[in-house]
Amino acid sequence: MQNGFSGVHWMLATPFDENEDVDAASIPALVEEAARTGCQGVVALGVTGEAARLTDEERRTVARAVIESAGGMPVTLGATAASTSAAIARCREAQDMGAAAVMVSAPPLGKPNPDSLFIHFQRISQAIDIPIVVQDYPQTSGVDMAPSFIARLAEEIPSARYLKLEDPPTPTKITAIRNLIGDRMAIFGGLGGVFLLDELARGSAGAMTGFAFPQVLVDIYRHMAEGDRAKAEAVFYKFLPMLLFEFQEGIGVAIRKYALHQRGLISCPLVRHPGPQTREETRAEFHNLVKGSGLSLAG
Amino acid sequence: MQNGFSGVHWMLATPFDENEDVDAASIPALVEEAARTGCQGVVALGVTGEAARLTDEERRTVARAVIESAGGMPVTLGATAASTSAAIARCREAQDMGAAAVMVSAPPLGKPNPDSLFIHFQRISQAIDIPIVVQDYPQTSGVDMAPSFIARLAEEIPSARYLKLEDPPTPTKITAIRNLIGDRMAIFGGLGGVFLLDELARGSAGAMTGFAFPQVLVDIYRHMAEGDRAKAEAVFYKFLPMLLFEFQEGIGVAIRKYALHQRGLISCPLVRHPGPQTREETRAEFHNLVKGSGLSLAG
Amino acid sequence: MQNGFSGVHWMLATPFDENEDVDAASIPALVEEAARTGCQGVVALGVTGEAARLTDEERRTVARAVIESAGGMPVTLGATAASTSAAIARCREAQDMGAAAVMVSAPPLGKPNPDSLFIHFQRISQAIDIPIVVQDYPQTSGVDMAPSFIARLAEEIPSARYLKLEDPPTPTKITAIRNLIGDRMAIFGGLGGVFLLDELARGSAGAMTGFAFPQVLVDIYRHMAEGDRAKAEAVFYKFLPMLLFEFQEGIGVAIRKYALHQRGLISCPLVRHPGPQTREETRAEFHNLVKGSGLSLAG
Amino acid sequence: MQNGFSGVHWMLATPFDENEDVDAASIPALVEEAARTGCQGVVALGVTGEAARLTDEERRTVARAVIESAGGMPVTLGATAASTSAAIARCREAQDMGAAAVMVSAPPLGKPNPDSLFIHFQRISQAIDIPIVVQDYPQTSGVDMAPSFIARLAEEIPSARYLKLEDPPTPTKITAIRNLIGDRMAIFGGLGGVFLLDELARGSAGAMTGFAFPQVLVDIYRHMAEGDRAKAEAVFYKFLPMLLFEFQEGIGVAIRKYALHQRGLISCPLVRHPGPQTREETRAEFHNLVKGSGLSLAG
Repeated sequence: MQNGFSGVHWMLATPFDENEDVDAASIPALVEEAARTGCQGVVALGVTGEAARLTDEERRTVARAVIESAGGMPVTLGATAASTSAAIARCREAQDMGAAAVMVSAPPLGKPNPDSLFIHFQRISQAIDIPIVVQDYPQTSGVDMAPSFIARLAEEIPSARYLKLEDPPTPTKITAIRNLIGDRMAIFGGLGGVFLLDELARGSAGAMTGFAFPQVLVDIYRHMAEGDRAKAEAVFYKFLPMLLFEFQEGIGVAIRKYALHQRGLISCPLVRHPGPQTREETRAEFHNLVKGSGLSLAG
Repeated sequence: MQNGFSGVHWMLATPFDENEDVDAASIPALVEEAARTGCQGVVALGVTGEAARLTDEERRTVARAVIESAGGMPVTLGATAASTSAAIARCREAQDMGAAAVMVSAPPLGKPNPDSLFIHFQRISQAIDIPIVVQDYPQTSGVDMAPSFIARLAEEIPSARYLKLEDPPTPTKITAIRNLIGDRMAIFGGLGGVFLLDELARGSAGAMTGFAFPQVLVDIYRHMAEGDRAKAEAVFYKFLPMLLFEFQEGIGVAIRKYALHQRGLISCPLVRHPGPQTREETRAEFHNLVKGSGLSLAG
Repeated sequence: MQNGFSGVHWMLATPFDENEDVDAASIPALVEEAARTGCQGVVALGVTGEAARLTDEERRTVARAVIESAGGMPVTLGATAASTSAAIARCREAQDMGAAAVMVSAPPLGKPNPDSLFIHFQRISQAIDIPIVVQDYPQTSGVDMAPSFIARLAEEIPSARYLKLEDPPTPTKITAIRNLIGDRMAIFGGLGGVFLLDELARGSAGAMTGFAFPQVLVDIYRHMAEGDRAKAEAVFYKFLPMLLFEFQEGIGVAIRKYALHQRGLISCPLVRHPGPQTREETRAEFHNLVKGSGLSLAG
Repeated sequence: MQNGFSGVHWMLATPFDENEDVDAASIPALVEEAARTGCQGVVALGVTGEAARLTDEERRTVARAVIESAGGMPVTLGATAASTSAAIARCREAQDMGAAAVMVSAPPLGKPNPDSLFIHFQRISQAIDIPIVVQDYPQTSGVDMAPSFIARLAEEIPSARYLKLEDPPTPTKITAIRNLIGDRMAIFGGLGGVFLLDELARGSAGAMTGFAFPQVLVDIYRHMAEGDRAKAEAVFYKFLPMLLFEFQEGIGVAIRKYALHQRGLISCPLVRHPGPQTREETRAEFHNLVKGSGLSLAG
């Protein structure tokens, strides 16, 4: 996959102000943190970006702010929608705005229908010129993609170059896919980085996730890319309690935004209602973990 | 509930052309059919309107076309969104465009959280001056609302005046709600009208559904309103095979749009991909039922 | 499918007494009603039989009572279980007791896995000599079976002779399956008989369902088998309100048992806790429908 | 909660032989491992025990073998069932066999119904004399229990003394429950022990989980009970990669049984079909982790 994506592409949170309005002014700091820490790209408007909670106009505001502050760093924009037509509209907008790629998850299907799902990605690929990051996240999409289906995408849709794989057990699925299509699709882990080490060892190309301390992800990736598994393990195991804490089901986005706020990267930690918010005890646990892991909030 | 909604409010399909683009030119004919048949209102941008498959700009196009052709007939606009902020934005737009009411279903909650859901509706009510039709459709929203929750909405949020109840068994739930709050909320049936007779007998105020022959719904409602249950039964039972056929799970919207197309009300029967389409056998069954029931496609 | 099942196989409710204990004494009356009305078989221990709410010992009590009172009528016993081993144990018991067939739905799979599901049915077929009724009811099993999967079962597992199809829209799926394998599997409708007419017209072999007035199902089947669609339609449309009423989601089993109790076929209408029970208003609606349809509770 | 359960109660896997038949001969070794490592009890017939995949007779075989080899150690037996009647039958059997407590999860409810669920636990409590461990695991039961519901159980059902809490984020929920009822119910974590440290810090009484190296759980609990958080953290963080690896969604039980087999505690690692099995790569990752963590397979 020459000249393609690899390494860490940081999933960006969407900052809101105290009124839950989009706070575009906080976006450049997030993008700079990605660049500063050696991320090879950023991804906006994903689950971490609360994309489903935004209006289309707000999506554009976020997308513009990210792209304007990205410098040369490639920006992937989430373009998932409940119909192929709407997904194409979002993908075209993303391309026109200068996105390097679009990320598209499965639309609701009622019941499993691989042929219909294939057409969804095929039509999208025919409507744009930039690559597609296929997001495989059944917990949020409600749609399962078998390794054989992913292989078909890779073989018949050349621009479906990337897979953001969030269907556990992810290491097992990476191997199953690679047994079918080798390196034909570059696979990125997600899920908060909690399985990053095994994913890389199984042949993933990197991670697309939003852990609030991206330096950690970058270090792990770099050590593995350099073949130094021992160093990668040391970093991964040191920060695993933090990775796992931040990714807690049912409250993960709230912890992540609290962390970003504490780090001075966003002006307000609010998640849009009716999303979760952190409480005092969770915040204390966070600070305890930061202290224990030797992380600096300053980065 | 003086001066409030009652009777049949017809759920409008969103017509698309052969390219699956919104066909606004077909909308006036749908609205006229509602007026012609004695519907007391129309509802756009619901499940029948494939609202989730539209971009925000397309939603506006549909809303404008409906309101412009509505004459004096009240228009309710669907404004469901995955966050309170986005729902408020949609509700305000609807109000500014001239909607008589907004219809709002529950946003995704992760897990049941009645307090959080209550705040959702409360904030919406504080942001607009028009009434809210609370949609209770757990099969599409994934969120259950207990009768006691609905009673709380009715008692604490004066503008939550209407309930579109689609949580079977609907007759049983109508009684459960009315035992708590009497007429404080006007309840409308949905679900294709399949349980309309029992719903009205239990005290519903009418129906908000999109059966392709709204005259049938209006006749049933009128006979019940006039206390002539025998006539209502005669009409209901005569057309029940048709009501049930059109509401078939997994293909209902496709049959409905085929029927509207056959009736000359929309220019093309397509459902947006990856939604379902009808096939030859289903279409033959439809025509057989129309013939058998003595319905005229011309209306 | 010579010498195989066809026509109506009545799904038997499991009668309980006032303490919710199995009331085996009521079972012969149910079986006799099936024989009296011309059903070609009975099916015990399905969803209507609340099989999941029974202990294994109670399942045996029910199975024995059904088989002992069946005379020459073939008895199919539900043998669904959450593992292949447990399903095989139940299937062997059923065979030893004298069942004519077993009915098996998909076990929970975690995520879709057609190969694993195929092995489930294959191992079962290798463990017994009687035919399998494959139950396709994703709403209760949580597992979807594509027409191509069902075709594979039919082609590779000779004893998988029957399909109880409860995956709407059922008429559409019957055609999809028959386009792949013709008559290789005899397909039976379920879902309370609500789509029986279209199912038969699409080529189903009959119905396996528990509508409390099986005579109605038998009459519809017989008229269709004799090529008299007009008569079949007349019966079907006349009783459709009743079929639909009894099959109401969330309360269907309770209505059915109330009807069986009113008909004198079981001694007590209770559904096992936490299943639903009917209330006064629903019972009044039932009697109103019986009266209106000209049905006799006596049968 | 004087004289009640606390500490680690080890969830027992159900060993099968190569034919997937219950291998009761392996059970004493499992129970001895619990005793040897300082567990304060064992729990059989839970999710780890693949209880849903067993026949009732097999459940009895497992229960007997566990109780016979338990010595003085208290045994909790899973008694979850899809009806109150069947759950009571299982609870009575458990009591008659000598169980110290029963563990009961919510039965399927169709839709949320706290009153019906309350009656379920109430009737069970009235039928037996031993305490109930209420299992709150919505991912497997499909039923959510709000903290206020759990408080009601604690206040109105004295024998509902224990809660096995597996509804993430578990630390947050522990605090929410304890804010309502203090120590009235002893709360045990599960979920593979992945959140054990925070759970104990929030006031849990211990863990009921099946991690294949129970010594680790016992050490963490003991350090926390002795007020030595630093030591507890050291152990927890050291083994967190292993805890998380073993609990991988979709394959966790298979890894656990592989680990138990490698440790010589069970004769065969098979999970009952259609459950998952490990593959070579996963097994290699396991051995790598064991080596890296300094764990000894011998225990």
